[in-house]
Amino acid sequence: MTTTDLVERTRRFVRDVVVPAEPPAGTPLEPAARRSLQRRAREAGVFAPHVPTRFGGQGLRLGEWSAVFQEAGYSPIGPAVLNCMAPDEGNMLLLERIATVEQQERYLVPLAAGATRSCFAMTEPHPGAGSDPAALTTTARRVDGGWAIDGEKRFISGAEEADVAIVMARTPDVGPEAATMFLVEMGADGVSIGHGIRTLETAITGGHPHVHFRDCVVPDDAVLGTPGEGFRHAQVRLGPARLTHCMRWLGLARRAHDTALDRVRHRELFGSPLAELGIAQALVADSEIDLATAAALVDRAARTLEDDARAGAQASSIAKVHCSEAVGRVVDRAVQLCGGDGVTLELPLLAFQNEVRPFRVYDGSSETHRWAIARRAVARREREVDAGERVLDRAEADR
Amino acid sequence: MTTTDLVERTRRFVRDVVVPAEPPAGTPLEPAARRSLQRRAREAGVFAPHVPTRFGGQGLRLGEWSAVFQEAGYSPIGPAVLNCMAPDEGNMLLLERIATVEQQERYLVPLAAGATRSCFAMTEPHPGAGSDPAALTTTARRVDGGWAIDGEKRFISGAEEADVAIVMARTPDVGPEAATMFLVEMGADGVSIGHGIRTLETAITGGHPHVHFRDCVVPDDAVLGTPGEGFRHAQVRLGPARLTHCMRWLGLARRAHDTALDRVRHRELFGSPLAELGIAQALVADSEIDLATAAALVDRAARTLEDDARAGAQASSIAKVHCSEAVGRVVDRAVQLCGGDGVTLELPLLAFQNEVRPFRVYDGSSETHRWAIARRAVARREREVDAGERVLDRAEADR
Amino acid sequence: MTTTDLVERTRRFVRDVVVPAEPPAGTPLEPAARRSLQRRAREAGVFAPHVPTRFGGQGLRLGEWSAVFQEAGYSPIGPAVLNCMAPDEGNMLLLERIATVEQQERYLVPLAAGATRSCFAMTEPHPGAGSDPAALTTTARRVDGGWAIDGEKRFISGAEEADVAIVMARTPDVGPEAATMFLVEMGADGVSIGHGIRTLETAITGGHPHVHFRDCVVPDDAVLGTPGEGFRHAQVRLGPARLTHCMRWLGLARRAHDTALDRVRHRELFGSPLAELGIAQALVADSEIDLATAAALVDRAARTLEDDARAGAQASSIAKVHCSEAVGRVVDRAVQLCGGDGVTLELPLLAFQNEVRPFRVYDGSSETHRWAIARRAVARREREVDAGERVLDRAEADR
Amino acid sequence: MTTTDLVERTRRFVRDVVVPAEPPAGTPLEPAARRSLQRRAREAGVFAPHVPTRFGGQGLRLGEWSAVFQEAGYSPIGPAVLNCMAPDEGNMLLLERIATVEQQERYLVPLAAGATRSCFAMTEPHPGAGSDPAALTTTARRVDGGWAIDGEKRFISGAEEADVAIVMARTPDVGPEAATMFLVEMGADGVSIGHGIRTLETAITGGHPHVHFRDCVVPDDAVLGTPGEGFRHAQVRLGPARLTHCMRWLGLARRAHDTALDRVRHRELFGSPLAELGIAQALVADSEIDLATAAALVDRAARTLEDDARAGAQASSIAKVHCSEAVGRVVDRAVQLCGGDGVTLELPLLAFQNEVRPFRVYDGSSETHRWAIARRAVARREREVDAGERVLDRAEADR
Repeated sequence: MTTTDLVERTRRFVRDVVVPAEPPAGTPLEPAARRSLQRRAREAGVFAPHVPTRFGGQGLRLGEWSAVFQEAGYSPIGPAVLNCMAPDEGNMLLLERIATVEQQERYLVPLAAGATRSCFAMTEPHPGAGSDPAALTTTARRVDGGWAIDGEKRFISGAEEADVAIVMARTPDVGPEAATMFLVEMGADGVSIGHGIRTLETAITGGHPHVHFRDCVVPDDAVLGTPGEGFRHAQVRLGPARLTHCMRWLGLARRAHDTALDRVRHRELFGSPLAELGIAQALVADSEIDLATAAALVDRAARTLEDDARAGAQASSIAKVHCSEAVGRVVDRAVQLCGGDGVTLELPLLAFQNEVRPFRVYDGSSETHRWAIARRAVARREREVDAGERVLDRAEADR
Repeated sequence: MTTTDLVERTRRFVRDVVVPAEPPAGTPLEPAARRSLQRRAREAGVFAPHVPTRFGGQGLRLGEWSAVFQEAGYSPIGPAVLNCMAPDEGNMLLLERIATVEQQERYLVPLAAGATRSCFAMTEPHPGAGSDPAALTTTARRVDGGWAIDGEKRFISGAEEADVAIVMARTPDVGPEAATMFLVEMGADGVSIGHGIRTLETAITGGHPHVHFRDCVVPDDAVLGTPGEGFRHAQVRLGPARLTHCMRWLGLARRAHDTALDRVRHRELFGSPLAELGIAQALVADSEIDLATAAALVDRAARTLEDDARAGAQASSIAKVHCSEAVGRVVDRAVQLCGGDGVTLELPLLAFQNEVRPFRVYDGSSETHRWAIARRAVARREREVDAGERVLDRAEADR
Repeated sequence: MTTTDLVERTRRFVRDVVVPAEPPAGTPLEPAARRSLQRRAREAGVFAPHVPTRFGGQGLRLGEWSAVFQEAGYSPIGPAVLNCMAPDEGNMLLLERIATVEQQERYLVPLAAGATRSCFAMTEPHPGAGSDPAALTTTARRVDGGWAIDGEKRFISGAEEADVAIVMARTPDVGPEAATMFLVEMGADGVSIGHGIRTLETAITGGHPHVHFRDCVVPDDAVLGTPGEGFRHAQVRLGPARLTHCMRWLGLARRAHDTALDRVRHRELFGSPLAELGIAQALVADSEIDLATAAALVDRAARTLEDDARAGAQASSIAKVHCSEAVGRVVDRAVQLCGGDGVTLELPLLAFQNEVRPFRVYDGSSETHRWAIARRAVARREREVDAGERVLDRAEADR
Repeated sequence: MTTTDLVERTRRFVRDVVVPAEPPAGTPLEPAARRSLQRRAREAGVFAPHVPTRFGGQGLRLGEWSAVFQEAGYSPIGPAVLNCMAPDEGNMLLLERIATVEQQERYLVPLAAGATRSCFAMTEPHPGAGSDPAALTTTARRVDGGWAIDGEKRFISGAEEADVAIVMARTPDVGPEAATMFLVEMGADGVSIGHGIRTLETAITGGHPHVHFRDCVVPDDAVLGTPGEGFRHAQVRLGPARLTHCMRWLGLARRAHDTALDRVRHRELFGSPLAELGIAQALVADSEIDLATAAALVDRAARTLEDDARAGAQASSIAKVHCSEAVGRVVDRAVQLCGGDGVTLELPLLAFQNEVRPFRVYDGSSETHRWAIARRAVARREREVDAGERVLDRAEADR
């Protein structure tokens, strides 16, 4: 099967099966409904598009994900139904890339099959690990036959429904700055769910609570990857996870835009269809431009990331900032074009807005990415001048 | 030679030879200097990159132009030096595609060699042909052995230095709505230069005057393409010409951005390099994003246009609007980052701004393109719903 | 007591009493809590600031409301506690201006005292009365001793808790285009609550349902104002109601901004307080500018509206568009500055965003107001030119 | 005469006399034409509106300037004709406030009469005094009977036509950080005009050159104000000068807006007047909003500055940033609405853009003002919390 086929099949499945099954705007998908829809997705051959076929998925390469994930994201529950929603999707990639065969058998296979759920436990309460990983406070210390983990994590999306967590911890026994990732079963002794952070998002089920680790002992084979290489391993997940968020939310933005187009096609104001009123046309055109630019950047970043991790980092920063802001604007314009139905839950648009708004903060805030983008731009120019390029800002007075 | 080689050669030629030879900011390139620089461009093997090798150029396909044209545009005089500036560049494309072999020999070969100049005489004084070609008022009537052209054209860029004009005229003898293009030598009887429109642009030399045709008789072989097919032929030129403007101005925007980067790298404010001040970083990052989005859209549109004229039209509209506005923002931010030198002619940035500002109006204004983009979006959705897609704007109250 | 005193007392009451009593972010104020807080507001002498003293309020003139309403709006429940929330507040103004003494005694006095609630039943399901009052479909027909009302209203804010509704109905017995307002008790025969529109707003309690009138007979003295003058009377309410929304949401935006300032004062990133990072400073400064511009426009519009209804209409359109958009931007920046706490309900900012977002649609959408503003601008210029001003757009070519 | 009368008289004079006498777009007013127009302004009783009547002006208080200056600014040459253009206007204020009676007689009286011109020599080549006055490098050292000034100033607007300069110099003989202002005649020994900075502005005639002082000896009575108080004295000029730029450019923005209104009133596109096309309406409405907000902020700042220098500083920073950006947007929209005539010199709009663009940099760049505005906002909030206000950013998890 070609990618194009899978895109088309996903498109039809999401629009014909998933969209009609959506819960009321602003409410999450119930577990029973998810299981039922996941079964239909498996039957339709659209389940787990990003997972290698040997682990039961559709086997797409990263550079091919965008169109499929956008189709999945056309429904806010689409990615969960197709089992390509965060945080599971990123965790599957990480397990595929760095887990042992035994770990893959034990954790990746059931996760890819939708039989289990997972979470990624990295972020900590301020001033712990957030934007700045160096501030990591959770520790794992060597004990007989394994490691004892202690610390508090926050905003651990999906934790309440997760079977397993990937936990980042400082491991001073490995090295003073060393951090290591561990696979920790959520039912293990010493793991408890804390304060539940309330959100207005619903696409990720299983809450966003704090998770406490108190003398939680795990065996040696719970180490994911190489001890001390936790941060480096996390990079494997980071870039793609950021882009898959872009892809999914871009799909949701297309849904919002199509909703607005349906509205402007038949709703009249002052005797003309909205679609022929210039102010509405300007909003529609700006959303078309935002969708086109975001899609072009995400495609470019995904292709770059396959080949060149370093160039991919800059490309994915740019794609992330632009896409997260563009989808917010597109949904906002759709809200505005749908008027009274837009600003209530008569239509799901305001709920979509609450889904996408946090993306301007998580996976690196717009401000943090802009800072990084600017620094890389300055460094790039520095290298060029060092290599002999003429300095360009010499004023006429100084010549 | 590969495209990559030509990009690199063009980059080096423009930065090492052209930039140092630029006239003072805001002043045009003198003809003698242009001839001299063009000779060096020929020697460097970077002349006429877009022209087929059989007509003396570098033979790039449209889908490969972008990187080379951006390098050319890094200097405001670069495209003229490389003989890929409007309006000649678009006229060469048109001659290549629809002229007879004799016409190509007579007009395209010397034009591609830089020995002659040309202009494109389509726009008319209001309410004649401007945004709306149906309003064309210039006529060409059958006379013995040829055609007599009468009418007034305006904003005919380059006309004062042009040897030949491509003139669009209504030809009622062909059909009531028929328009035809003619190759008219500027020295012919009945051709005169009228009111010179003053501009702040300098990249196109030869003025932007009105041109009058009064009983200007041309022979039958002056018809370019098929009689009556003038508007259809013009489309051949329109899409690519719009994109090459994008490419050139994108190159100029990169120059402005690099100038600003050079400034922020070493200029200090309140004891820190500007490059480390957040407000400057935000400006730099936004320009990086604008450059990346514009480049991605232009590349996509150029590739699309090679294969599919219809899809290319929508893609090139989106690219044109976004790029024309993005380059304006990038140059504006560079002006701001360079402070007092930015807002005077100590640096050429304000002159660059005056070069790119009109592009938000010509080749279809932002407003006209947004109108077209919105209409195509609505039509696309209309087709989807007609083909069975679910209408999405049904309110909860109506279910 | 001076206005300044009342501003200061309101400020202290809202910050010291109301803010600490707020329900969790995103949840409405319970009726019992409201009654208790209203009692304290009465004791503090800050209740019903906009109501004339003879009806039990603080007696402020419209031109003096802004500062007090902004202080009230500093808490999302502040205006309800102070009994100056929509729709009651606008209804009180209407009753004060056009009701009979008997109607005022019966409806205004208990409403001003907080003993009853009210709603304003004008909007209808599409294509009925929304932006375009001419489309009004609800009718009131003369019957023996009164009027029989039939029709459906939608988005009737507060209807579920209201004791009385002001209902706009077409009255063909008065005249072909005539509309009349009626005071209808919600418990009357023929009044029923229909579909409840779900919203993410909580500041107005009592829902936003559809309300059905089926052969609802009211006596003659239920007419509010003059029969047939319904639309003219509604104007009395419209301008001020639009501005009081501005004032209240401006207060809420100040609260969001202060929340962000508290965050940037002590939260560090990369070793510096956020308050010293330029990107954060740019966001803070833009919010300061938005708050200052919005406040200046609202003050100006309120003062103008006191003296000159016509000039006030233009001033209040401009104030409404700008303020509704500015408060959205200010809250959005606060969300962004507060990062992870901003995009969850750890802080109430996202809930504030959901409160203010609909204001870009109700009371005339941004698009409708822009249309009106542009038309008035063109008409103003038309009058100037008619009165002899020189036409300014003559091109050099035409001189 | 009331202010209203003067506003009206100025309006009529500028529109009926000055606008028709404007030189071609983008070219400066010739000295002879200026003198002739100034004579007519004197006869019309509109000359030097800001100068106290005892010095020959119209005697307006600062709080009343805005409307008159806006009318003056409706023509780019209006302020020069009315003798209320920078830098003379700010210099007159400074002389009025801090000069001795003898200095006023000698310098202010002829300056107010339009018989002489002046410049303000404070800015220096980087890294000297620019945004940061502490970096001042020009010095004045005590010599027998006076002071010897040495140093280089840059961007000294009007210097080539000026009779006298107000020069800021470091005076180490007064104190280690002390700076002092001097009145220096431009013909004095040791004063020479250096590199002329080319600009695209034309409203200030007399160039923007560097000015060199080499052992330029001035007598003791050349000290303006108190020795060592130079920076404090400069503040007297700074706030009002910033606001008068706002006022004048706001007037020019109104002119651009009226020009666009004239264009949209009669120019048709696709068979409708532009004025009825929504995209044009959106541009017109946004400009109305920008003009209204800018005017409201400038008025507020001017009134505040009369009473309270400290509050005035914050108000004038906000007004300056907003107004400088708003006028740029208004002119830009007018350019766009006038299409091909907008982006050439067929209309003066592009020249207006070049007049107003630098204002986002001089008198404190947008970035510097945003930085200052943010710092003052944080400090304001700091004081409030210190005085007992509740800290607002406490997260739910921390309660």
